[in-house]
Amino acid sequence: MSTELNFINWLSKHTATSPEVLVGIGDDAALVGTSQDSWLIACDTLNDGTHFDTLIHSPELIGRKSLAVTLSDIAAMGGIPKFTVVGVSLPRNLGPQFAEKLYRGLQSLAGHMNVIVVGGDTTIWDKDLVITTTVMGKPHVKGVAKRSHGRPDDVIFVTGPLGGSLNKGRHFAFEPQVNLASYLMDHYAIRAMMDLSDGLGMDLPRIATASQCGFHLQADCVPIHADVPHGSPQKRFESALSDGEDFELLFTTDPQTAKAIQSDEFLVSQGIQRIGVLTKDPSQIYSWSNSQPRVLPQMGYEHQY
Amino acid sequence: MSTELNFINWLSKHTATSPEVLVGIGDDAALVGTSQDSWLIACDTLNDGTHFDTLIHSPELIGRKSLAVTLSDIAAMGGIPKFTVVGVSLPRNLGPQFAEKLYRGLQSLAGHMNVIVVGGDTTIWDKDLVITTTVMGKPHVKGVAKRSHGRPDDVIFVTGPLGGSLNKGRHFAFEPQVNLASYLMDHYAIRAMMDLSDGLGMDLPRIATASQCGFHLQADCVPIHADVPHGSPQKRFESALSDGEDFELLFTTDPQTAKAIQSDEFLVSQGIQRIGVLTKDPSQIYSWSNSQPRVLPQMGYEHQY
Repeated sequence: MSTELNFINWLSKHTATSPEVLVGIGDDAALVGTSQDSWLIACDTLNDGTHFDTLIHSPELIGRKSLAVTLSDIAAMGGIPKFTVVGVSLPRNLGPQFAEKLYRGLQSLAGHMNVIVVGGDTTIWDKDLVITTTVMGKPHVKGVAKRSHGRPDDVIFVTGPLGGSLNKGRHFAFEPQVNLASYLMDHYAIRAMMDLSDGLGMDLPRIATASQCGFHLQADCVPIHADVPHGSPQKRFESALSDGEDFELLFTTDPQTAKAIQSDEFLVSQGIQRIGVLTKDPSQIYSWSNSQPRVLPQMGYEHQY
Repeated sequence: MSTELNFINWLSKHTATSPEVLVGIGDDAALVGTSQDSWLIACDTLNDGTHFDTLIHSPELIGRKSLAVTLSDIAAMGGIPKFTVVGVSLPRNLGPQFAEKLYRGLQSLAGHMNVIVVGGDTTIWDKDLVITTTVMGKPHVKGVAKRSHGRPDDVIFVTGPLGGSLNKGRHFAFEPQVNLASYLMDHYAIRAMMDLSDGLGMDLPRIATASQCGFHLQADCVPIHADVPHGSPQKRFESALSDGEDFELLFTTDPQTAKAIQSDEFLVSQGIQRIGVLTKDPSQIYSWSNSQPRVLPQMGYEHQY
């Protein structure tokens, strides 16, 4: 069965390389240009019925989300988003007022994040709403936090509680962790980083595999969002693994930096949490404090044909 | 009635400005960054049933076109395209082979134009195919050719014959005029420039209005493509005005530069043709050599709600 991940692998094998592509396909954003003049670029496509529902969600919320997810990609590289262009396939029956509200929602977040809408293409058709948002951003002066930068014995962190995002609508209201990413990059040596869009159960294996590591996830340490319904600890842990669209950051640091992060009052107040370690051993395991390690089941959102 | 043009006007009024936005919404591409480190960015959305038909056209042709139209936007600013990211809403029933062929078509043109695919988002849904292609490019060292740079008495040129693109499939096979735009920028003082996507009858008024000019179009001088069916000169002229998707460049220069261009053997061999002049008088008129000037009817492709 083909999956999005396989397709990305296929694409990256069939794509030309260049000294001007500093980070190519397969990370949260690409980094292009020269070391003196480099830019991050990321793009996300949201479809009616998958990422939002025009019968349920307001155009403002849909517009806001379409930008938020791509800002999150730039944050995941440790960068600062600057400009966006937006491609919209607008259902004819929704009309111009819908489009204006969509852009108002998008621009309210853009303004808040100092991102400027510099262009786009609004096409009208008789089918469902599709929005593709592309964001250009500047990398941090220290460089970018690639998924592949993790090393064995790195400590794994998440920036906030996970799970329940879809059933409580948090996937529309979330604040992309741009400022927190900048703070982390400013003050600490961040190694691997990505944003949690498809669920920890899908995304943690991705960052570990990209870093040629395994991991040991401490199930007790994974912060569970209040949006996750009551239930057994195992059940709630599984929600945190699989619900997706958390848009928190997942990152790793060396053990000494990890200690400094854990005693950083600002970061602790922001909900940053140590959840495990990368391992030299490629196995992908989790354990409760009182149990034997078990193999992490593959959980999370995967785009399937 | 609202139209795409009205919506662009609305958007540009509701968008923040910044010293880092050197050219914003309303031109073929935006120019962002600083004068030392600036980039062009453009985006186009193509929808099944409007810009292509998955029941008729091969995935390779569709993929190729999705990049070609955006490369044409960068050429229209006189720039060099460098990188692209592609957002795809892929119908589940078309499957991974279709997606691979789509990307093969896109990448064959990318390779030919030294453009690198650096990322994207391939989503799978149960609706029709949508592709949004965003291209980053470098502006020419002399700057960019904005739509608004025309002045009264400028000579108006097109880079090749117009009309009949849709019925003969040229809108899939066209070569974006990237190299010709570079040649023009290298050798001549180009003022206003844009690419002809919606038909000369729609696009000439746009470049004139952006330049706060009127125009006098010489109907006899408009080169008619061999793809236009036989008929009366007026009928063929109307095809050239209204068929759309020519993807030739429309540009203006001062009269002295115009003379030099008209005696440039390379440009003449490429089919470059003088078609009229910009005027101080805001009227938008055309004439045949043996007739009185008439007001140009609005013709071409407009996206309607």
